[in-house]
Amino acid sequence: MTATLTPFEPLPIAAPEQVVPINLGDRSYDILIGHGIWQDPKTWMGLPQASLAVIVTNDTVAPLYEAALRQAISGHYPRVETVVLPDGESFKDLAHLQLIFDALLAHQADRKTVLFALGGGVVGDMTGFAAATYMRGVPFVQVPTTLLAQVDSSVGGKTGVNHPAGKNMIGAFYQPARVICDLATLDSLPVREYAAGLAEVIKYGPIADPDFLIWLEQQASALVAREPGAMMQAVKRSCEIKAWVVAQDEREGGVRAILNFGHTFGHAIEAGMGYGSWLHGEGVAAGMVMAAALSVRLGCISPNQAERLTALLRAVGLPVQGPALPSDAAETPAQTYLRLMRVDKKAQAGEIRFVVWREGDIATLRTAPDETVSEVIQACLTT
Amino acid sequence: MTATLTPFEPLPIAAPEQVVPINLGDRSYDILIGHGIWQDPKTWMGLPQASLAVIVTNDTVAPLYEAALRQAISGHYPRVETVVLPDGESFKDLAHLQLIFDALLAHQADRKTVLFALGGGVVGDMTGFAAATYMRGVPFVQVPTTLLAQVDSSVGGKTGVNHPAGKNMIGAFYQPARVICDLATLDSLPVREYAAGLAEVIKYGPIADPDFLIWLEQQASALVAREPGAMMQAVKRSCEIKAWVVAQDEREGGVRAILNFGHTFGHAIEAGMGYGSWLHGEGVAAGMVMAAALSVRLGCISPNQAERLTALLRAVGLPVQGPALPSDAAETPAQTYLRLMRVDKKAQAGEIRFVVWREGDIATLRTAPDETVSEVIQACLTT
Repeated sequence: MTATLTPFEPLPIAAPEQVVPINLGDRSYDILIGHGIWQDPKTWMGLPQASLAVIVTNDTVAPLYEAALRQAISGHYPRVETVVLPDGESFKDLAHLQLIFDALLAHQADRKTVLFALGGGVVGDMTGFAAATYMRGVPFVQVPTTLLAQVDSSVGGKTGVNHPAGKNMIGAFYQPARVICDLATLDSLPVREYAAGLAEVIKYGPIADPDFLIWLEQQASALVAREPGAMMQAVKRSCEIKAWVVAQDEREGGVRAILNFGHTFGHAIEAGMGYGSWLHGEGVAAGMVMAAALSVRLGCISPNQAERLTALLRAVGLPVQGPALPSDAAETPAQTYLRLMRVDKKAQAGEIRFVVWREGDIATLRTAPDETVSEVIQACLTT
Repeated sequence: MTATLTPFEPLPIAAPEQVVPINLGDRSYDILIGHGIWQDPKTWMGLPQASLAVIVTNDTVAPLYEAALRQAISGHYPRVETVVLPDGESFKDLAHLQLIFDALLAHQADRKTVLFALGGGVVGDMTGFAAATYMRGVPFVQVPTTLLAQVDSSVGGKTGVNHPAGKNMIGAFYQPARVICDLATLDSLPVREYAAGLAEVIKYGPIADPDFLIWLEQQASALVAREPGAMMQAVKRSCEIKAWVVAQDEREGGVRAILNFGHTFGHAIEAGMGYGSWLHGEGVAAGMVMAAALSVRLGCISPNQAERLTALLRAVGLPVQGPALPSDAAETPAQTYLRLMRVDKKAQAGEIRFVVWREGDIATLRTAPDETVSEVIQACLTT
């Protein structure tokens, strides 16, 4: 490792607003985290100036938060326009990206126009990719309203859309000017979606921080109850760990891949079931159980560690078994998983590299024999 | 200026293969220029290695050159696949970009797969954008087979597609691993397309190099006759000037905009007539006549300079008057131009910045009163 992760320190119960700096040279930015921070004028100060700001959101989030965001930024931008996309991972494609471009051109957006991504990971990824490619790049601000987006997708600069043959196959690395995580927006999240966000929070334990995993076990019921202090700490620590990883490897040449713990299996579940059927975090939860089982098989963790993770995922209401995936081919359920995993971006020349949990160390990448992987998948399927 | 342009030096008549280095730090690359250089094995040495290379081309170029390129690179890549797009600027859109992604996924392209853009500017821009965004970035090589692509679009890292509301509205800055300009491929170009390429060659005179403009006046008939020595010098000097400009301003924050001399008017012609009706270089030629007339009006050059440019463009067979653009609105011909120019990427908050030719200096950016611009357009329209 080229850097050291600052030790985990639980916050005081009444935590103030927090800032997590992301250090990427001239692409550095801050993540602001706090309850009700939209109402604080300094949240919006120092953003790129322009004559036009465009809010990109979806039809679920727009009725809840569009007016409030518009009000918060209208003092900074003479003109504010809004693009409303249909809600859902199934609309994260080039055709719906085109709707953003259509709106930007209709509103005569220019190279200085600032985009605001208001919503979850899908809105953030699509808005970020639109910002990366509209006139070859305009500034954008992430305003995530889901737990998943606050702790994962809005941090790190990955943007893009899906292709029928694979998730996030088309995209760019492009950093926002700021990320604004108002924890108050999480209160409106459906239980299932909130739990899916917790899957990405929990992930940070196995990949980098045993102390955080212990804390999560202790706080599981507080997190499920959405207690503000616990949420603040969970979001902050998740962003810190992600920032620490991303700062070492902005373009995913190496260590950054550990953030995909459970994702190789999870993406197969999402793709195999059809995008939108399983939530991303649900796929990751079942995928982490498989990844932990593989880590046990490779001798990297004890079975007890894998069981702790499964128990924690179950305690927050997440799936801990993978589904049998529909398939037209004459193949076993495990073969269906393997086929889907081989088209994943992380595969190279058909070879799948798995993120492996290691006791007392940060996670790493390993290949594994198809036979071993098949056995692990088979053992983790819904019975 | 932060650098000095090396003085213009005509090459010996039997010019050997030439290399123009593009210095962009860790994104540096070379432009190789020469007759028949595809046949030289060292042309292909040192490119990124991969198990798969994908040639992207169009249905005009494929029958002429696909087999030869495949043969040239097949010793370096175990597997070579080809994607053939329909030929033409009218297919430079997101829908046809999707065809490239479909093919990449069908061939199980991964993050190391190398794309080869075989064709003109449209193929180069689309392949470059596909490379920039497939799995968030794979390497690509420009193998331009048109004069326009060799002297302009394959150099400098601009990639992208058009939107119905504007040219190159969606794209990215993304540098190739190498540009390979085989002058032999220009022999098959239709007269009209070859002349359109000369428009971009001629452009480099007014924007940066009076000596080159004099040389072009002397060599006009040699260039029209496609004499190898003249072509070599024209391509090399064009690439050198473009490289000099791009090295100072990779992402078009400042001086790079001078490369768009004549383009603001030219884009209006292309968009207004419908993409594909006027060739890009033809729009630029008529646009340069307008830009030169504006430069005279702003007192930056003498009328004689503008007349020299018009005479040179006419001598190589390019249009020197703009068409009346179709319009549903109740507006004058000049107003149609102005409306289309205001949605150009180079406009900011509706203000159009024109590249102005200055006697004895490199070109610069200026705004101008609508009235002056209207008069200039009106005077340069087909009568």
